[in-house]
Amino acid sequence: MALIDLNSDLGEGFGIWPLTHDDALLGIVTSANVACGFHAGDPSVLRKVTGLAANAGVAVGAQVGYRDLAGFGRRFIDVDPAELVNDVIYQIAALDGFARIAGTRVSYVKPHGALYNAIVRHAEQAAAVVEAVKAYDASLPVLGLPGSEWLRQAESAGLRPVREAFADRAYTPEGTLVSRREPGSVIHDPDEVLRRVVRMATEGTVVAIDGSVVEVEPESVCVHGDTPGAVEIARGARDALVEAGVELRAFTSAAGDA
Amino acid sequence: MALIDLNSDLGEGFGIWPLTHDDALLGIVTSANVACGFHAGDPSVLRKVTGLAANAGVAVGAQVGYRDLAGFGRRFIDVDPAELVNDVIYQIAALDGFARIAGTRVSYVKPHGALYNAIVRHAEQAAAVVEAVKAYDASLPVLGLPGSEWLRQAESAGLRPVREAFADRAYTPEGTLVSRREPGSVIHDPDEVLRRVVRMATEGTVVAIDGSVVEVEPESVCVHGDTPGAVEIARGARDALVEAGVELRAFTSAAGDA
Amino acid sequence: MALIDLNSDLGEGFGIWPLTHDDALLGIVTSANVACGFHAGDPSVLRKVTGLAANAGVAVGAQVGYRDLAGFGRRFIDVDPAELVNDVIYQIAALDGFARIAGTRVSYVKPHGALYNAIVRHAEQAAAVVEAVKAYDASLPVLGLPGSEWLRQAESAGLRPVREAFADRAYTPEGTLVSRREPGSVIHDPDEVLRRVVRMATEGTVVAIDGSVVEVEPESVCVHGDTPGAVEIARGARDALVEAGVELRAFTSAAGDA
Amino acid sequence: MALIDLNSDLGEGFGIWPLTHDDALLGIVTSANVACGFHAGDPSVLRKVTGLAANAGVAVGAQVGYRDLAGFGRRFIDVDPAELVNDVIYQIAALDGFARIAGTRVSYVKPHGALYNAIVRHAEQAAAVVEAVKAYDASLPVLGLPGSEWLRQAESAGLRPVREAFADRAYTPEGTLVSRREPGSVIHDPDEVLRRVVRMATEGTVVAIDGSVVEVEPESVCVHGDTPGAVEIARGARDALVEAGVELRAFTSAAGDA
Repeated sequence: MALIDLNSDLGEGFGIWPLTHDDALLGIVTSANVACGFHAGDPSVLRKVTGLAANAGVAVGAQVGYRDLAGFGRRFIDVDPAELVNDVIYQIAALDGFARIAGTRVSYVKPHGALYNAIVRHAEQAAAVVEAVKAYDASLPVLGLPGSEWLRQAESAGLRPVREAFADRAYTPEGTLVSRREPGSVIHDPDEVLRRVVRMATEGTVVAIDGSVVEVEPESVCVHGDTPGAVEIARGARDALVEAGVELRAFTSAAGDA
Repeated sequence: MALIDLNSDLGEGFGIWPLTHDDALLGIVTSANVACGFHAGDPSVLRKVTGLAANAGVAVGAQVGYRDLAGFGRRFIDVDPAELVNDVIYQIAALDGFARIAGTRVSYVKPHGALYNAIVRHAEQAAAVVEAVKAYDASLPVLGLPGSEWLRQAESAGLRPVREAFADRAYTPEGTLVSRREPGSVIHDPDEVLRRVVRMATEGTVVAIDGSVVEVEPESVCVHGDTPGAVEIARGARDALVEAGVELRAFTSAAGDA
Repeated sequence: MALIDLNSDLGEGFGIWPLTHDDALLGIVTSANVACGFHAGDPSVLRKVTGLAANAGVAVGAQVGYRDLAGFGRRFIDVDPAELVNDVIYQIAALDGFARIAGTRVSYVKPHGALYNAIVRHAEQAAAVVEAVKAYDASLPVLGLPGSEWLRQAESAGLRPVREAFADRAYTPEGTLVSRREPGSVIHDPDEVLRRVVRMATEGTVVAIDGSVVEVEPESVCVHGDTPGAVEIARGARDALVEAGVELRAFTSAAGDA
Repeated sequence: MALIDLNSDLGEGFGIWPLTHDDALLGIVTSANVACGFHAGDPSVLRKVTGLAANAGVAVGAQVGYRDLAGFGRRFIDVDPAELVNDVIYQIAALDGFARIAGTRVSYVKPHGALYNAIVRHAEQAAAVVEAVKAYDASLPVLGLPGSEWLRQAESAGLRPVREAFADRAYTPEGTLVSRREPGSVIHDPDEVLRRVVRMATEGTVVAIDGSVVEVEPESVCVHGDTPGAVEIARGARDALVEAGVELRAFTSAAGDA
């Protein structure tokens, strides 16, 4: 029986400003990438989201990013790798404090936004994030793009790399994401998104923007948490997967876990 | 034989800006109140200071403050107590991540600046900080002013309250600190500071600004880490205590610990 | 013929996070209190809102606040008055830069949130804001609560004080606002809000929470810009005023201005 | 008679943290590049430094940078150029408010740190800063590296480009600065620094790191404001220039100005 994890970026409000549909999505996804305060997520958001996730049995991941509230972590910053190591540790540790209080733990790490994109290729920054995870807790799996420098280095360092695919993003024939600056980079048709999710989970493939078929073999599929239709699409994806006979389970769970 | 702990606020640089004489003071004090990023202390500072402290066998405490880099945490902020709980947890947890990596742990909590002063009397904020410490790790002792609402509530909640005295601050006859806005609030004469430290450690008293003798019975004495003569005064205090037959030991150490 | 100004807090988004319905409200109100970056409002928000306001002929006011993005400027901060002067100048000047580029000017100042509330009574902070406005441009009128320390000091200093009333806030018999922590402090019934606005504009009075009638004689009435029904209520208020024969005009406009 | 301007980065403290020797250097240099709050410089620093500069007859320039206090503006940030325009306007306008209050004006613009370096080649960001200056005040000259994209675009846009040289930085044979990551990039010998300044001012040349002679023809020479010997070197440079018969004058001054 096919298995898949559904993850979503959550806890991305800050102060008076909400963003992600945390309550609803924590009833749908199996893994929550929780913002840690550097690109979004104030301490009270972290407290609330870790509590909800723990109650819902959703795995809590540290969604670490550049220190950039004004840019929501979506702008590459040429941080000194030695400092980036510490910025990432700080974020994981802060979130882990709340996770422990909620009776769970940070159980994986997923970089956010521009950092996620940078370490597909930026070897020094990739090494910095790997070093941070390893220093904090070398048993934490890390989520990323198949073929990325980030997952390659993580594996070399003895971390468990977890391949991720994106439900609503267009792919190049090489298996990378079509840049958001290109037309057609985001799939807006909900039915098409659901078909892609099922295909990713059952066949491990995605149809690239040129029509070719690309192997992505994801252990986890990312659905968005902040768009207007986010909740409906996530719920639809969950239903479609169940209907296709796919079991939804956090990739951090051992087989047989609840 | 008399016992005393010497503590100092450290790790209070931020980015390019240094402040406290971390290296030198970690060779002198027995407890380091390390800033956690809200009023000072970026992640790389936390990494460095926890590493130095661990190597030197100095106890690491979380110096938690208001979120106020521009005001260095020295301005009262009327934070919603429910949010303050989470702000404090966030800071302790972040620092604890670095402490663990350095092979030690956050072993106590000391509020900083305006928060320290506020919770001498502000019952709701005092309760918030107590709740935060209890939620994070109820075994952590907390440092504060004898007679403060903060220590009273901490004790009621089952936390270990630790009485602190200030080497270079003038006291009122009631045992509170003379406000920094008053003349004579800070003792500038190094010899006088040393005499006060020894008296605090050996007799448990301090001469108040009106000449009366006040019982303070400190388990820990705070020496400053950021003034021009900070290192010399701290070293002088240490030497004077040793000469007076006082043993210097972190209040977090069990008797017989190194 | 009765005259009234309708003002609203706008430009309160930050980065990825929107908040106020800037576009719609700039077609309704006559004065826009634009956030200046300390409690909300990044530079691109300021650019956009000043441009829209200038096009719509809406007066631009500087909505100055405490430096507190995490608390949205809603928490009292005990800032040194000498620093508060400069914090306020900085905000007015930054916004004025964008206003000038848009072909208009900052034409009044309205403190935001906790600062607004503080200077109803806090003489030193009120004096600081007055000093800032006077230093920047002594011809700028200032908006505030009738009877406040802020308007009293502003008038003494030669600034033009402008009395403001709140469309949807309950009043005490003394003419102050019922605290948001009290039940009934906010009027949620849209029809009741509209009746109050018309009464404020035509009779200069409001019915207090105990049923007594209070003189408020506002030159400007504040309608909210961030609540779900904000746009409908603001439009309703405008229509009701016009129907009642009240002319809507920015208080900064000379009689006969467009 | 040869003419030169001496400029220095000033006002780079923040809150409790001082950095630059503002008081002393404002008695030596002819132009002050004042930080505007994004990489350093809180409003009270801006107030103080603009006041001192105005009193000393030193020209005030806006030292605009990326929004990055933690990185002191020394890390490249891939800001959307449309947002960068507004970030730069905001900074110039805020500083100009203080300059006006001090009886002067922002009279030029100099990008800081990583932004300075980026726009040597980054055409989109260079265009953004040019657009910002032009929108705010097209009469403001701009300071930069000879041959940079920044000065080229500024000139095309009708701004006055001002060539700058660095007293203590090594040059490549192509006239660019040797990267700080290379050995020998900074000249530490004070006497050598003074000889270079005089040569720059009198002959318009500098000896590159390979011994070749490069034309730089600066209108302004930058001396550092934050290093331990900064004040002595700046004073030495001033004295050496006077002795060599060079007149020191802000490049913003018309001939014959005081």
